[in-house]
Amino acid sequence: MNGGMNGHRPGRLIGVGVGPGDPELMTLKAVRAVGEADVVAHFAKAGRGGNARAIVTPHLRPGTRLLPLLYPVTTELHRHSPAYRAAIAAFFDGAAEAVAAELDAGLTVAVLSEGDPFFYGSYMHLHVRLAPRYAVEVIPGVTGMSGCWSGAGAPIAQGDDVLSVVPGTLDEAELARRFRESDAAVVMKLGRNLPKVRRALAAAGRLEGAIYVERGTMPNAACRRLTDKPDDTAPYFAVVLIPGWRSAVAATAVEATPPAAVARLAP
Amino acid sequence: MNGGMNGHRPGRLIGVGVGPGDPELMTLKAVRAVGEADVVAHFAKAGRGGNARAIVTPHLRPGTRLLPLLYPVTTELHRHSPAYRAAIAAFFDGAAEAVAAELDAGLTVAVLSEGDPFFYGSYMHLHVRLAPRYAVEVIPGVTGMSGCWSGAGAPIAQGDDVLSVVPGTLDEAELARRFRESDAAVVMKLGRNLPKVRRALAAAGRLEGAIYVERGTMPNAACRRLTDKPDDTAPYFAVVLIPGWRSAVAATAVEATPPAAVARLAP
Repeated sequence: MNGGMNGHRPGRLIGVGVGPGDPELMTLKAVRAVGEADVVAHFAKAGRGGNARAIVTPHLRPGTRLLPLLYPVTTELHRHSPAYRAAIAAFFDGAAEAVAAELDAGLTVAVLSEGDPFFYGSYMHLHVRLAPRYAVEVIPGVTGMSGCWSGAGAPIAQGDDVLSVVPGTLDEAELARRFRESDAAVVMKLGRNLPKVRRALAAAGRLEGAIYVERGTMPNAACRRLTDKPDDTAPYFAVVLIPGWRSAVAATAVEATPPAAVARLAP
Repeated sequence: MNGGMNGHRPGRLIGVGVGPGDPELMTLKAVRAVGEADVVAHFAKAGRGGNARAIVTPHLRPGTRLLPLLYPVTTELHRHSPAYRAAIAAFFDGAAEAVAAELDAGLTVAVLSEGDPFFYGSYMHLHVRLAPRYAVEVIPGVTGMSGCWSGAGAPIAQGDDVLSVVPGTLDEAELARRFRESDAAVVMKLGRNLPKVRRALAAAGRLEGAIYVERGTMPNAACRRLTDKPDDTAPYFAVVLIPGWRSAVAATAVEATPPAAVARLAP
């Protein structure tokens, strides 16, 4: 009944990284995968198509079915509350079953992921539920942070640098410690955490080099030194970059680079 | 004499990330950039073409000139010695001037970078030397580490995870501390550092989950649990992954995933 020579059912699941936003930053493999898929599933908020879907639309063949996986509305729940966790788990359970139904029908399902599927992506929640049962392939993508530091003209890490990717949700002392102990850092999940991140950077003596990037590789990207940003308003997906490479051969040259590049991009 | 409305000379420099090895993991933008370039520069060892050049060859138009930038032979020098640093600095100075000569002639020069140009890439050394003088664009690429964790079927980081990218060149105690304090980690620059990395993982209690990946997305990729690797021989570009996401909603499911995925890929 479950078919497949290796015990897998016949459908095929593909986690597809579509990159950081610029449609040209899709890989050739991602373009092929969405073009060949029977069903293209994507996460979105109710009433919105989502970035990932917009990015792949030109590459779909006629007849490909879209399967939107709509996040539940959880704004009234605290993100560490049991109720929130239960709502999110139920959502991913349901999304996985919706995808499984297509796989059971023998179809190839591409699940879109902004950036890279295994790097803080929602796709991971489907992967852990479905990989034990189905043939799965994951196509890596350009991450949002690569898009940001490239757009900002800010070389991030070189040589023996330690790079830390840190969620802005950590507490202030912990953030400061991470900034102090890393040569380079990327702060994700800014949003309402920006004032705290700013204080932690100052405490760690790392505020001067910090670069604020909004909407990474989008046409309306905004990029500036954090010290030049007058307010503390930031979208959730904005990032702060702390470029490393302070001990490199060309240390004097790199010191001169970020300001010029940032100036070129600043709105 | 220097031309250009904004004080830049007329040539255009493009740092092009070509991805982790699989030619299909080039982005559409990288394909376009190398196809439009007058000159394609790439780092290589003397007598070898290099991976990046092989990856882009199908996308070059007839008449595009290749500019190999050949690393000096420095095997007899210690990597922290002044003589080594001087040899490397002189090499990058010379490489930058070779590229500058093409830019001064008004040409568009694409400089290839395996993975992502600003993520531990040699391109950075040219960038800091040339960005103050010329119009520059950097095209991000899929990193080697994304290629590795995707190929291994190992979701790397989710939610509030801290991810550390750590060079295997750090000393053993420092490595152990980093492994202890990170939810997820990627160890680069393995080579002869593997025995030390293994001891540090054991000291930090993180050896069990560690995954060893060789040649990431190449057709001959090798991926296995580090505890299943019987020897300590590793190429310089092999990586060790320590997947995070231990506190996630689906913690029990993710625990079950890496072994199956790894088993599927193991040689």
